[in-house]
Amino acid sequence: MTETLGILGGGQLGRMLSVAASRLGYRTHIYEPGANPPAGHVADQVTTAPYEDEAALRAFAASVDVITYEFENVPTSALDLLESLKPIRPNRRALATSQDRILEKDFLNGLGIVTAPYASVTDEASLQAAIAKIGTPAILKTTRLGYDGKGQARIKEPAQAAAAWASMQGAPSVLEGFVDFTHEVSVIAARALDGSVACFDPGENVHKDGILRTTTVPAKLTPSQRSDAILIAARILNALDYVGVMGVELFVTSKGLICNEIAPRVHNSGHWTQNGCAVDQFEQHIRAVMGLPLGDGSRHSDVVMENLIGDDVLKVPAILKERHAALHLYGKGAPRPGRKMGHVNRVKP
Amino acid sequence: MTETLGILGGGQLGRMLSVAASRLGYRTHIYEPGANPPAGHVADQVTTAPYEDEAALRAFAASVDVITYEFENVPTSALDLLESLKPIRPNRRALATSQDRILEKDFLNGLGIVTAPYASVTDEASLQAAIAKIGTPAILKTTRLGYDGKGQARIKEPAQAAAAWASMQGAPSVLEGFVDFTHEVSVIAARALDGSVACFDPGENVHKDGILRTTTVPAKLTPSQRSDAILIAARILNALDYVGVMGVELFVTSKGLICNEIAPRVHNSGHWTQNGCAVDQFEQHIRAVMGLPLGDGSRHSDVVMENLIGDDVLKVPAILKERHAALHLYGKGAPRPGRKMGHVNRVKP
Repeated sequence: MTETLGILGGGQLGRMLSVAASRLGYRTHIYEPGANPPAGHVADQVTTAPYEDEAALRAFAASVDVITYEFENVPTSALDLLESLKPIRPNRRALATSQDRILEKDFLNGLGIVTAPYASVTDEASLQAAIAKIGTPAILKTTRLGYDGKGQARIKEPAQAAAAWASMQGAPSVLEGFVDFTHEVSVIAARALDGSVACFDPGENVHKDGILRTTTVPAKLTPSQRSDAILIAARILNALDYVGVMGVELFVTSKGLICNEIAPRVHNSGHWTQNGCAVDQFEQHIRAVMGLPLGDGSRHSDVVMENLIGDDVLKVPAILKERHAALHLYGKGAPRPGRKMGHVNRVKP
Repeated sequence: MTETLGILGGGQLGRMLSVAASRLGYRTHIYEPGANPPAGHVADQVTTAPYEDEAALRAFAASVDVITYEFENVPTSALDLLESLKPIRPNRRALATSQDRILEKDFLNGLGIVTAPYASVTDEASLQAAIAKIGTPAILKTTRLGYDGKGQARIKEPAQAAAAWASMQGAPSVLEGFVDFTHEVSVIAARALDGSVACFDPGENVHKDGILRTTTVPAKLTPSQRSDAILIAARILNALDYVGVMGVELFVTSKGLICNEIAPRVHNSGHWTQNGCAVDQFEQHIRAVMGLPLGDGSRHSDVVMENLIGDDVLKVPAILKERHAALHLYGKGAPRPGRKMGHVNRVKP
């Protein structure tokens, strides 16, 4: 009997995971609260139900062999139930660590990995203390990702502290010092059930308005920076006893690499692997969570990945005619500003 | 609203077509009489019904924008009905031509394309006449593919004629002369709705026991043979007013290229394109039938494709550990002798 992988979340990452699973002969079952998930177009089964629907969660778990996820904000109660029924990979600790900016930075610093300076903020007084410690400019963020859509506030000078704290609407927050970096790279790293680790070549990322725009491989890195980047990623995965693919974002500075954040899942900055490697990040994740050996992650071609965000899809007719351009659309409806509609991998032969 | 492509046939070709359609943002609906089709694991909808079920065919047609097929033996009655409801691409003429070995050879010779010598056989007397014309050794085949599983008979000398004809069980047949060729190549060619044509690099095929084993690109061809191969393919597609991908098999001989057969669909010998080109044969077919411009078919990497047939799947654990090996499994059940279970594309960086 074919094994089935359950995927929590039905967006584009789930969609590309499902396709990769099919290449290895697996079936997939998507669990997604929202109607008409992109991943459902290429899955064997789809459950449309809220994460609070215990019966739906139980039926989902009964139909799969292993559970993974494509996004981090699955409610704890759903994970508690699912974990009692089937293995969840990557594990809960990775998820908990990455969901909380303070836990994450404590964890990284505990491994000797440099991060931006940071301090916990729970009220205006602790924000003032944090500013005194870290200085300005700095940035105030809620500690938990996607926390009711509450955002981030830049603090250029101490006088802006009160307004910044007010904008957090009482949510536990963290003040982070600015990092003077030349560019950002990310390492897409994988760890198998047997503890072996494989990393793809670091990619160089360009963001605009807080959204990834392009990833270029190879990245501008000296040989020693390149091996540092990979060693940092491997240290993180080993420390978490991680199984699956993780995205590790690093700032390149004159004083070395600084870890910006980790994402316990396949990562937008790893989409280039679809056309640059025999085994891409999605298949690598499937291999890891299904207990197969990892591919070695070797790159056979240089690639520039460009995200198609919102009206960028208007470029599709031109992209279709480009030589060596591999288009990946997500089957979403109408483009909206900031909505990731697809990406294109431009391969250098 | 997302457009939906209907695919007749749910085997591995339909499966890989469905994945390619998803990359371009389309949904797919698979129509397949057999239960649990491999393509159904990665499709938006699946209809399991015989080709004689008119209500199911009508509902299928109503749910899709365009219809294509992954295998040639769809009953005429089903195609007649479907064609009255939605466009079928490639067109019926291509299908009719390729389904009948005599029609096919008449068509090719009418275009000035060389084939093996051949003659129609409808009884023992016409077989004797055909042998007198073509000589021996020769091979007797039923004119229609998959005709009740009736097969082929080699005729080494005229005395074997009666037994050969008896083995055809009365089916209309064709006698083909043997061709003295050094190797076989195939051209995977595509033609768009606007009549533009794009060909992938010819691949060199090795068969064993009548089943394709490997395809290697680039093929052993002189520059003039290579352009001959592509011109032959383009002539065929233009003459049929073809829309979609076609596989054109050619024998390489000291006297030039001889056309063996054409397949009006994506073709096993084009699987290498998945890892050698930014736009593979599956996506190229989807582009053509959905009215998009073709990709140019450029190859960014050399590839050797190996089919995994029957117990070849036992090699999977070793293949998973190979560098630059891209594995494609079809999600079928137990391996059986001669059953295509998957393939591996070995990329040369």
